[in-house]
Amino acid sequence: MDRKNEKSEAKGGGKGGNKPFQLDKHEIIERIPNFHLLPKPVKRRVYALKRLQLQSANIEAKFYEEVHELERKYAGLYQPVYDKRREIVSGAVEPTDEECEWHSDQEEDDLAENLQKKAALEEKPADSADSVDQKGVPDFWLTVFKHVDLLGEMLQEHDEPILKHLQNVTVKFSEPGKPMTFTLEFHFESNSYFSNTLLTKVYHMKSEPDNNDPLSFEGPEIVDCEGCKIDWHKGKDVTVKVVKKKQKHKGRGTIRTVTKEVPQESFFNFFNPVKASPEGMDEELDFTIATDFEIGHFFRERVIPRAVLYFTGEALEDDESFEEEDLEEGEEEDLDEEGDEEEEGDFDPTA
Amino acid sequence: MDRKNEKSEAKGGGKGGNKPFQLDKHEIIERIPNFHLLPKPVKRRVYALKRLQLQSANIEAKFYEEVHELERKYAGLYQPVYDKRREIVSGAVEPTDEECEWHSDQEEDDLAENLQKKAALEEKPADSADSVDQKGVPDFWLTVFKHVDLLGEMLQEHDEPILKHLQNVTVKFSEPGKPMTFTLEFHFESNSYFSNTLLTKVYHMKSEPDNNDPLSFEGPEIVDCEGCKIDWHKGKDVTVKVVKKKQKHKGRGTIRTVTKEVPQESFFNFFNPVKASPEGMDEELDFTIATDFEIGHFFRERVIPRAVLYFTGEALEDDESFEEEDLEEGEEEDLDEEGDEEEEGDFDPTA
Repeated sequence: MDRKNEKSEAKGGGKGGNKPFQLDKHEIIERIPNFHLLPKPVKRRVYALKRLQLQSANIEAKFYEEVHELERKYAGLYQPVYDKRREIVSGAVEPTDEECEWHSDQEEDDLAENLQKKAALEEKPADSADSVDQKGVPDFWLTVFKHVDLLGEMLQEHDEPILKHLQNVTVKFSEPGKPMTFTLEFHFESNSYFSNTLLTKVYHMKSEPDNNDPLSFEGPEIVDCEGCKIDWHKGKDVTVKVVKKKQKHKGRGTIRTVTKEVPQESFFNFFNPVKASPEGMDEELDFTIATDFEIGHFFRERVIPRAVLYFTGEALEDDESFEEEDLEEGEEEDLDEEGDEEEEGDFDPTA
Repeated sequence: MDRKNEKSEAKGGGKGGNKPFQLDKHEIIERIPNFHLLPKPVKRRVYALKRLQLQSANIEAKFYEEVHELERKYAGLYQPVYDKRREIVSGAVEPTDEECEWHSDQEEDDLAENLQKKAALEEKPADSADSVDQKGVPDFWLTVFKHVDLLGEMLQEHDEPILKHLQNVTVKFSEPGKPMTFTLEFHFESNSYFSNTLLTKVYHMKSEPDNNDPLSFEGPEIVDCEGCKIDWHKGKDVTVKVVKKKQKHKGRGTIRTVTKEVPQESFFNFFNPVKASPEGMDEELDFTIATDFEIGHFFRERVIPRAVLYFTGEALEDDESFEEEDLEEGEEEDLDEEGDEEEEGDFDPTA
């Protein structure tokens, strides 16, 4: 019985989602209570099997390098599609009727149906004078971001006017032979907030087994990232807010008001990531970093390749299956809540 | 507000984990309340973007075919390692001292330490006379299976004596150009339960976008599987149990006892999978099938490549990160419980 208690404690230590991949030695002992009972000759053979497992891990590392090569090759094949997307979104080109042909499937029918129902209730007509001469797809990436639950509270109302100037998001893979990285590139039109037209976030991958724990290798893993300096125009930096503070002069007792800048939640903190703490020194910090890595991976794997599906919302069900397969009721409720929060943003009447 | 209620309902409909990938039309409407408000010219451009997304999906399908090719190539590179594993497990070859050299890391130290502590309490000495002349690694695959939580109640006590005869588990990939499949092969030594020496389970993958919903393509997906006929020796079939039934003769009213076979939980039902029901006709059936697919995928991706880590228990933490990343407290507790159930098996004194 107390064995179970021990076990729960061991697991308890890992709670909170930080370092979810670390092996729990205690756990191992609990799981193989009879390992120490194995006759020495058998134990010896098991060690031989573990040595073979090291060989497998090294072969696996080569496999993932070749997959990375494939990804670089296919990045080239996707490029023309992404270029065309950029041109349509920005309004640089107007698609032909043929290019816009979309066979109305069930979903479209539902939308159309819904249109009639809702249009009645709407104060604003479907085609208002001010909107007919809009270029491309206005607020495309802003809308995409609003539909990415993972961005959560990172995306603030004060970020939205800035993200209206975001024109494209792309990913660049490291050259063959170089250390494995991918770089997210956020392309902005010139705007009144900062002078950069390109903001970047580089993610560094560890693509070979770790010497300290080679058998836990599961393929390339994000291990570090770098943001970039944003050259904010004076008073436009949304990652800080100015607060007034009263100071009392010790001697004279006169009171004066000073202003100081304090950090503020913003999507643009994404470009100024916190650095990892020494192994588990700071659980909250480690969690923040794990989330940042998750977001970076998600941009690369989902948002960039399927942006239009986030714009329309069609990608959302997929994400859930992406984040965790076959949901338990409990988890599903969690997701509902996230979804709702997200939604308040979507339905903001001021939007 | 009631919009949220609608949403929860829509989500509620998807509960239970069956068909987690299916798009919920209702959901879409909720997520893009303003889609129908987009000016026609903008909507038109969005359709153009969706057509581009179809092109991406088809490129992605080619990418995954090349990955499958890579997997076939690497299956060849892993083969010598797997062969050596088989030989050591079966006792066909005795590894050299060099091959057994294992630098005692933290984990090994813990094990050693634990050995002293526990050995004292154990009735059975570490090297009992009957065990020193054991060949290879006895019960290797049985022990591996016991450590795979996913097999859950599939693995019954009456399966264990049979699985002691399981000598190897391998995976075969489909030939290039052929429809994408993988075959799990379970190699048995001749035994008193069935005459087969090879049991197989074939998984069929759908590797290109589905015409009905091409934009939801996420790479190859298991869509069907086939088991194989097990030629059980008389009275040895553990997938059925014999029950006695009393029958009363209508006319004479005499009572006679008849015996009939009824299905029984067993790992070997894995080779007689249920067939899919027409779209969501039977949620429980669909869930059973989803679980079977998950197990097949798990054998291919985890159990076969890392068998020794399941034998020692080291792979277990990884699985959790494999099933769902950064765990919520609630989920983690769920996993604890599973773990404990699993464990009761491991600690079965009769084992």
